[in-house]
Amino acid sequence: MAQPAPKVLAFDVFGTVVDWHGSIVREMAALHPQVDGDAFALAWRAGYQPAMQRVRSGQLGWTRIDELHRLILDEILPRFGLKHLGEAERAHLNRVWHRLSAWPDAVAGLERLKKRYTIAPLSNGNIGLLTNMAKRAGLPWDCILSAEVFRAYKPDPATYLGVAQVFDVAPSEVMLCAAHHDDLQAAQACGLRAAYIERPLEFGAAHIKDVSPQPGPELHVRDILQLADRLGC
Amino acid sequence: MAQPAPKVLAFDVFGTVVDWHGSIVREMAALHPQVDGDAFALAWRAGYQPAMQRVRSGQLGWTRIDELHRLILDEILPRFGLKHLGEAERAHLNRVWHRLSAWPDAVAGLERLKKRYTIAPLSNGNIGLLTNMAKRAGLPWDCILSAEVFRAYKPDPATYLGVAQVFDVAPSEVMLCAAHHDDLQAAQACGLRAAYIERPLEFGAAHIKDVSPQPGPELHVRDILQLADRLGC
Repeated sequence: MAQPAPKVLAFDVFGTVVDWHGSIVREMAALHPQVDGDAFALAWRAGYQPAMQRVRSGQLGWTRIDELHRLILDEILPRFGLKHLGEAERAHLNRVWHRLSAWPDAVAGLERLKKRYTIAPLSNGNIGLLTNMAKRAGLPWDCILSAEVFRAYKPDPATYLGVAQVFDVAPSEVMLCAAHHDDLQAAQACGLRAAYIERPLEFGAAHIKDVSPQPGPELHVRDILQLADRLGC
Repeated sequence: MAQPAPKVLAFDVFGTVVDWHGSIVREMAALHPQVDGDAFALAWRAGYQPAMQRVRSGQLGWTRIDELHRLILDEILPRFGLKHLGEAERAHLNRVWHRLSAWPDAVAGLERLKKRYTIAPLSNGNIGLLTNMAKRAGLPWDCILSAEVFRAYKPDPATYLGVAQVFDVAPSEVMLCAAHHDDLQAAQACGLRAAYIERPLEFGAAHIKDVSPQPGPELHVRDILQLADRLGC
């Protein structure tokens, strides 16, 4: 790296640190084995950006991801033959997002990075969701940062710049680590640094994601362990 | 306890989890040994409630504790013969609040409580301050909650009720743990549970605080280790 090392590492979470697709497929196999878990997970996630867009555009007031996930869930259940699910079953299923499993390298990689850097999620997930997830999966965050803290969803600049403001550092002292180029580009437009993390299995083994290097990010790594290598931890 | 156990334990921090008086006295002895550290610490802390009151009343817009601490510091420095301190020295000294030491029982007590409960600070300190403090002192919070998250200072009900909302639990499932009866009373008025933690040395050995039991809190404990005992951890 040409620039000095960053001080704060902010991580995208869904797909970058945790395996939302695999976790949902596994829960569906246990709870509702008759449903195509792969298609169900993809349908649920496909509603994510449009739901946030309703908040970003002002059509919906500030609404947490837990509530947005539930709106999408209620919408897709009939399509998968699960219209009959009652309130308690829907509420439990909706909290699968609190129970997502970490990618195998995540906990060990974050433990190493934490020794030298301040590490925090910067996720559109709400604080309670991210806290419950971290507690269950053993993610050793120094603090939980979330769209909920800034009342704005990524890619709103308020989220990226908010991390720098919270820690009283320059934007160039914050590095966003994410498996999504659009997130990294928005962070870089705010002056943050960027590390791309390959997650070829984000959408499941049947839908391998192209993770070949693209221009833009300062670092391109296979996983969080390799990120720790590259950042001298 | 007559009621079921709480799910979330929210801790006041300054005085309850960390020793602000002793930490400031020690830093002043090292940095400015000619100053009466005890009087200096008390004067700095004495400006705390009036400064927050300026925010609560609307006289000041939302202002973080780091900035309020600095306003008070600039005001008291001349009184202690430190008017000559430059910007870098003032900025460093102001961050002593990020470097406060935990009471000797705090880390071990919180580690035990964390196994059964979600634990978080609920402090008027800002997120960056609380995160830096936790990282340095080894406080194992599940997440950092702060007045900064709710844009309101305790005892505003938005702070106490905000904890319950973040975790989607009833107010009665949150217990505030604090060394200050006024904080606990405000939490109880919002339906939260209350545990009083004795900190007779909060203001230093020359100013022993009366910690004799008062009616009101559900629990009255010597320290956080005894809190863990009483909460079955």
